[in-house]
Amino acid sequence: MLRELREKVLEANLEVVRRGLVLYTFGNVSGIDRAENLVVIKPSGVPYERMSADDLVITDLEGRQVWGEMRPSSDLATHLHLYRSFSEIGGVVHTHSEFATAWAQARRAIPPLGTTHADYFHGPVPVTRELTAEEIEKDYVRATGVAIAECFGNRDPLEVPAALVADHGPFCWGRTPDEAVHNAVVLEAVARMASHTVSLAPERAGISQNLLDRHYFRKHGAAATYGQS
Amino acid sequence: MLRELREKVLEANLEVVRRGLVLYTFGNVSGIDRAENLVVIKPSGVPYERMSADDLVITDLEGRQVWGEMRPSSDLATHLHLYRSFSEIGGVVHTHSEFATAWAQARRAIPPLGTTHADYFHGPVPVTRELTAEEIEKDYVRATGVAIAECFGNRDPLEVPAALVADHGPFCWGRTPDEAVHNAVVLEAVARMASHTVSLAPERAGISQNLLDRHYFRKHGAAATYGQS
Amino acid sequence: MLRELREKVLEANLEVVRRGLVLYTFGNVSGIDRAENLVVIKPSGVPYERMSADDLVITDLEGRQVWGEMRPSSDLATHLHLYRSFSEIGGVVHTHSEFATAWAQARRAIPPLGTTHADYFHGPVPVTRELTAEEIEKDYVRATGVAIAECFGNRDPLEVPAALVADHGPFCWGRTPDEAVHNAVVLEAVARMASHTVSLAPERAGISQNLLDRHYFRKHGAAATYGQS
Amino acid sequence: MLRELREKVLEANLEVVRRGLVLYTFGNVSGIDRAENLVVIKPSGVPYERMSADDLVITDLEGRQVWGEMRPSSDLATHLHLYRSFSEIGGVVHTHSEFATAWAQARRAIPPLGTTHADYFHGPVPVTRELTAEEIEKDYVRATGVAIAECFGNRDPLEVPAALVADHGPFCWGRTPDEAVHNAVVLEAVARMASHTVSLAPERAGISQNLLDRHYFRKHGAAATYGQS
Repeated sequence: MLRELREKVLEANLEVVRRGLVLYTFGNVSGIDRAENLVVIKPSGVPYERMSADDLVITDLEGRQVWGEMRPSSDLATHLHLYRSFSEIGGVVHTHSEFATAWAQARRAIPPLGTTHADYFHGPVPVTRELTAEEIEKDYVRATGVAIAECFGNRDPLEVPAALVADHGPFCWGRTPDEAVHNAVVLEAVARMASHTVSLAPERAGISQNLLDRHYFRKHGAAATYGQS
Repeated sequence: MLRELREKVLEANLEVVRRGLVLYTFGNVSGIDRAENLVVIKPSGVPYERMSADDLVITDLEGRQVWGEMRPSSDLATHLHLYRSFSEIGGVVHTHSEFATAWAQARRAIPPLGTTHADYFHGPVPVTRELTAEEIEKDYVRATGVAIAECFGNRDPLEVPAALVADHGPFCWGRTPDEAVHNAVVLEAVARMASHTVSLAPERAGISQNLLDRHYFRKHGAAATYGQS
Repeated sequence: MLRELREKVLEANLEVVRRGLVLYTFGNVSGIDRAENLVVIKPSGVPYERMSADDLVITDLEGRQVWGEMRPSSDLATHLHLYRSFSEIGGVVHTHSEFATAWAQARRAIPPLGTTHADYFHGPVPVTRELTAEEIEKDYVRATGVAIAECFGNRDPLEVPAALVADHGPFCWGRTPDEAVHNAVVLEAVARMASHTVSLAPERAGISQNLLDRHYFRKHGAAATYGQS
Repeated sequence: MLRELREKVLEANLEVVRRGLVLYTFGNVSGIDRAENLVVIKPSGVPYERMSADDLVITDLEGRQVWGEMRPSSDLATHLHLYRSFSEIGGVVHTHSEFATAWAQARRAIPPLGTTHADYFHGPVPVTRELTAEEIEKDYVRATGVAIAECFGNRDPLEVPAALVADHGPFCWGRTPDEAVHNAVVLEAVARMASHTVSLAPERAGISQNLLDRHYFRKHGAAATYGQS
């Protein structure tokens, strides 16, 4: 069932490890088939070295498992809420990558301090509000997705394809699982450079809207000029 | 004698090197056979590349060598005190890993600043008191173990399977030598992210008790839901 | 056409990746043939693993493409302005390397804090002024080159073969593409050490002119004594 | 001539590269034959990949070249002054390793902030005074050695086998070239942890004399208990 998507999601899970974003089994990638409304996700707590496309799990958008014998990632309900809220996205990644997690733990949004940021994120990478005690106790994993979606309102989530969950770490997304991972890798690099920048210049608040637009739209949208056509 | 445990302790010693926690011969791992009350530990100052299971040393809980021709790790008496004080543990690791050691040198406990911490440590990772001049001169290595045990009192040492020895570095433990090493690897990652976090937000004191419990008990205890059953 | 220069520019592009200065397709290297007034540059957004000397692009100094089927690097106009302004240089490199970019984002010139700096850069590595809204909107890429050239005035650009573009990242150059990359690698090491230095000693402003001269002229100019003759 | 020492010095030069202390041709290692009063040193500016024992240079203690066709390291006169001043030492290493150089550029001695430091350095790692304009202009390389020796007075230089040259970087030594490199590797680790420590606890001044002695003499001197006898 969904063999091709399972292969892509497996490959995306292995790529976050190769890129150094994941320690042990922290982190997970999923992908969605929008025609079938089915989500493929990594199993919970399985070492990456031994994972095959047959170990992945398939659920519907309400989390009912429709394929696979393993238990799905414990973060499944967050992924599902993002797929329900953001109809444009096709892949979701969660990591505890070092510097993005530090910003999340600091409860600080990452301001656009340079053009590397602007090439990928059309504004600050937001940090969620703190969850309430009730949310933490009753429906924690889904509530995490709710808090992320709240940061975006009606905004296109592909314009800033990442959010920092306060006290926790980053979730990233894209049109495909691949692109979600690419965004997670860039987010970590951006978070790292932003940390060094605020250490050198604590007063820097961000680049101008002009420069942000110039770089973002060079790579995205109808008028993009970056890469080969 | 205790061939299987020696193989496991050897492997655990090599794993701390592969994980980048150890420079030269700094660091050591031990394991205990609770049925025999015998401890297997790394020899002192032997390069890891040349170490075999036959080079490991076996002592009783008072430190009397019962097997092996090499001299045991100079930190043996600390390991033994931990095994005597914490009856639940089966393995102990000591490293000078970069960021955990920096917190130890700063004499600061590592506060639970995020869920990565909460997944492994159910509260701050404590830092020991300074040893007295008498302790340093007379029975230094054992006194190091005494100071660690004091941080825990009657608390279950597996709830926070690590402590920072002030001015020195981390000791970690677990139900097996393997698990102790796993905890040492996670501690270093947590210490690293905590350093970046306090640099970005010096005022952050730690996550809520609710969130700490939610994550800790997701992975530990009877109601754990993480991983495959 | 210009086969040998294309091979050298390809090799220089691969070297910045091997040296860890480039993530994905960020970054680009070019070289110039001064006899023909033709510039060889990396194509835009092509993965390094698949790049061959046949994918490179050749343009004249006004940016008219005279060879190659791919679209040139989106930073081409900056490279061309540097070749027009600095007649001594034969290669240009642009990266988003971690610490040099952090200084650029902080809008701080890198002061000469030690002899590693002085061995390569005969004074601070300057940071450009912020571009105007008009420059960003109308002729952004060329204006970036203009702002860099302004930092040098009539000064020999080979005495400080690098500049930080404010809010963006470093451009480096040299007599050849190879040397430009070498300078980019050293700049990143210098930026890294400078960051740690200002963290330890925020008040340090730079070494004496005597020491700066002593080291710079040990490696450069007619009286150089470093290396083999 | 001195074939065995040349092999050892070559190997020590390659080891500093493998340990990540050296970029390009920065850094150099030498060794002395005390019976002959001859010093073997790396040639100036030769890439490590192509260096063989036949490329090394041999000089007497006044710097007269007695063997080899290459030009010696430009830091030769510093090495020679250290050999003349410190009769106990057999090898000298100079690097621009990242964190040790940052402390040197900050003009701060590295205080003994933990037992890793105390295991190797029996007190702070000193930083030299600034050289005078005259020293820089007239006899710079030798004066660097003079400034290092001044930090030690009549003290045994093997008790603290390293110094930071202000605005420049570390020089380390040992009874052999091998041991000098070992000390340089540990110095970098100590400098790195000390940087993180002062960031977490700016007020920490250093461990007690008791603890410093306990660790230092565990590894050094007649009563040492570390390692195998």
